Amino acid sequence: MPELPSDSVGVVTPQTAHFDDPLDLACGKTLPAYDLVYETYGTLNAERSNAVLICHALSGHHHAAGFHSQDDRKPGWWDAHIGPGKSIDTRHFFVVSLNNLGGCHGSTGPISDNPETGRQWGPEFPMMTVTDWVHSQTRLADRLGIERFAAVIGGSLGGMQAMQWALMYPERVANVAVIAATPKLSAQNIAFNEVARQAIRSDPDFHDGWYAEHHKVPKRGLKLARMVGHITYLSEDAMGSKFGRDLRSDDFNFGYDVEFQVESYLRYQGDTFSTSFDANTYLLMTKVLDYFDPAAPHGGDLARALAPAECPFLVVSFTTDWRFPPSRSRDIVDALIRAGKRVSFANIDSPHGHDAFLMPDPRYQAVFAAFMSRVAADLSLEGRP
Amino acid sequence: MPELPSDSVGVVTPQTAHFDDPLDLACGKTLPAYDLVYETYGTLNAERSNAVLICHALSGHHHAAGFHSQDDRKPGWWDAHIGPGKSIDTRHFFVVSLNNLGGCHGSTGPISDNPETGRQWGPEFPMMTVTDWVHSQTRLADRLGIERFAAVIGGSLGGMQAMQWALMYPERVANVAVIAATPKLSAQNIAFNEVARQAIRSDPDFHDGWYAEHHKVPKRGLKLARMVGHITYLSEDAMGSKFGRDLRSDDFNFGYDVEFQVESYLRYQGDTFSTSFDANTYLLMTKVLDYFDPAAPHGGDLARALAPAECPFLVVSFTTDWRFPPSRSRDIVDALIRAGKRVSFANIDSPHGHDAFLMPDPRYQAVFAAFMSRVAADLSLEGRP
Repeated sequence: MPELPSDSVGVVTPQTAHFDDPLDLACGKTLPAYDLVYETYGTLNAERSNAVLICHALSGHHHAAGFHSQDDRKPGWWDAHIGPGKSIDTRHFFVVSLNNLGGCHGSTGPISDNPETGRQWGPEFPMMTVTDWVHSQTRLADRLGIERFAAVIGGSLGGMQAMQWALMYPERVANVAVIAATPKLSAQNIAFNEVARQAIRSDPDFHDGWYAEHHKVPKRGLKLARMVGHITYLSEDAMGSKFGRDLRSDDFNFGYDVEFQVESYLRYQGDTFSTSFDANTYLLMTKVLDYFDPAAPHGGDLARALAPAECPFLVVSFTTDWRFPPSRSRDIVDALIRAGKRVSFANIDSPHGHDAFLMPDPRYQAVFAAFMSRVAADLSLEGRP
Repeated sequence: MPELPSDSVGVVTPQTAHFDDPLDLACGKTLPAYDLVYETYGTLNAERSNAVLICHALSGHHHAAGFHSQDDRKPGWWDAHIGPGKSIDTRHFFVVSLNNLGGCHGSTGPISDNPETGRQWGPEFPMMTVTDWVHSQTRLADRLGIERFAAVIGGSLGGMQAMQWALMYPERVANVAVIAATPKLSAQNIAFNEVARQAIRSDPDFHDGWYAEHHKVPKRGLKLARMVGHITYLSEDAMGSKFGRDLRSDDFNFGYDVEFQVESYLRYQGDTFSTSFDANTYLLMTKVLDYFDPAAPHGGDLARALAPAECPFLVVSFTTDWRFPPSRSRDIVDALIRAGKRVSFANIDSPHGHDAFLMPDPRYQAVFAAFMSRVAADLSLEGRP
């Protein structure tokens, strides 16, 4: 049996929390009952003060760290940052990571059955927003006996949830880390999401979202959606240095089979995704991104939106991220400063574009670890795991 | 009847040149015979020294200036720059603008009949390259009695053709203008093209390129291809200031109908294109872009590739162009300097992204007009149209 790395949280088992209290949603609908699937790493201390919530991004899920079995070869999506001795040190912190509502990895979502119809929710699953997610996350915290998180942390769409926590539940979060995020999507961001949505929705196998009942999967659309998404996750330089204009074989074939390595890579990414992710879920997740704009109810003034926040913030961006570029993180930082909040900001020099937030990087890890170490020190967590 | 603008070339009529000499292509095939459709503006002088060739971009065609009838409301695609008193002044120059081989606007291409089979060429139309196009353009020049062009000019993919002219036929071109172009596509450029191709080729109505015989049009794929292309033509700032996060109606509908104005715009652009452009042609044009890399046969050394050129160059880029950014134009300029060529370079401050090359802009027009005025002066064209 292969040995798991010593700085891994080891083998973890997802758990499911069922909720019977209806959840009123921003779209006007109510979710009568729902499940949230989650994982935890580390141990909740007696004071219940050391919990950290991890919020996932567009196609993420609850499996952020560790392995699902002894011979599982691929760890969770943020394993580089969660574990004993890592930035989010599980010797000090009790880490909670969930799959959001509307997801397709175990929490209630479009692939779940609608109890009222006995039919899969499919396209009738109610639309979600970041505020709905944060609301549902407080219920999970209640269930786990966590009154206040030591930190709420997320990258990309996850960072938006972390920001929203600070606004909606200032008394329930001691620190917030907003990584590779933005206070709102730009027209170009929305445009790329719209291409992805049109790709999925115009696939004849989509059947207005009832593909499961037709025993189909809109694979073509999902593949295209992932391909175009993937281009925006990588920096132009990263793509250039990874693939350049390298050919797959010695010369051009002057046809439409793969010629350049980058074509092969994108097709593979798209194919893999198209058989593993639910189309209705992907559509919903892109909409959650589009809707996020906490400043909107405050006349566009992000500082006013952030006024209720009480905690210190860490904001991190990456130099080559062109999906949510450093300037957007700076908008968050500027608004926090105008609102008189405590904020640390690091713009990490990385070649990896938006995807950098998922990757190990010495400077990123150092900034992140220093922040978490301060969080632990404030709560007197260190030295007594 | 509406009056046409006084600085317009007026009503123009496309002409067709038929060629019976087979054209050997870079892909190894031979095109036995072909038509090239073209327009001309202005008058060829007695010395035949005042001809200017315009090369078109990805979805362009021969109709660069003027109107097709007295009540035609939309002028040619480069009407802002071609006409009496404009940058390419038709009082001095005889302008030739053609539809390239493989096009779908009258020149021989996938929608033409293959004389050997009596069937539409469709997906069997041979693959083109920029070198093939330039070769075919020399035949058109021969037919028109033009030994040497006063200038060969193009934007984007058109700029690549202009560059290729200077390398392949240095004795036949007196000046070259390369606008918003690149010496080769990056991995990211190829990746976007590949998304467009996959969108078209995975459309069930594509039928491996034989859609016409199935009386179908792969509209879904063409629409997606155009949508994703369109995002790359506009700058993020231009999209932001044009649409921002503006909603189409007062509030979110929390569904998949159009919510943001930018969605509406992109869908409209995609729909329009999907009913007006041929899918096989679009595929072919993206491949021509991908293949272009004149430095490749010279170990990647663009200066060596440019060594045969004899003419002065104008290179123009636009500050917010992220499809072919100014740094790529600078690569061309640097190579020209290293090769000891004469080159003028202008990086025009424009908010319009790649599309800026199609638009009127005072600084762009001033640079362009100054260059063309020098071309005219060198040839002693001015004052004797």
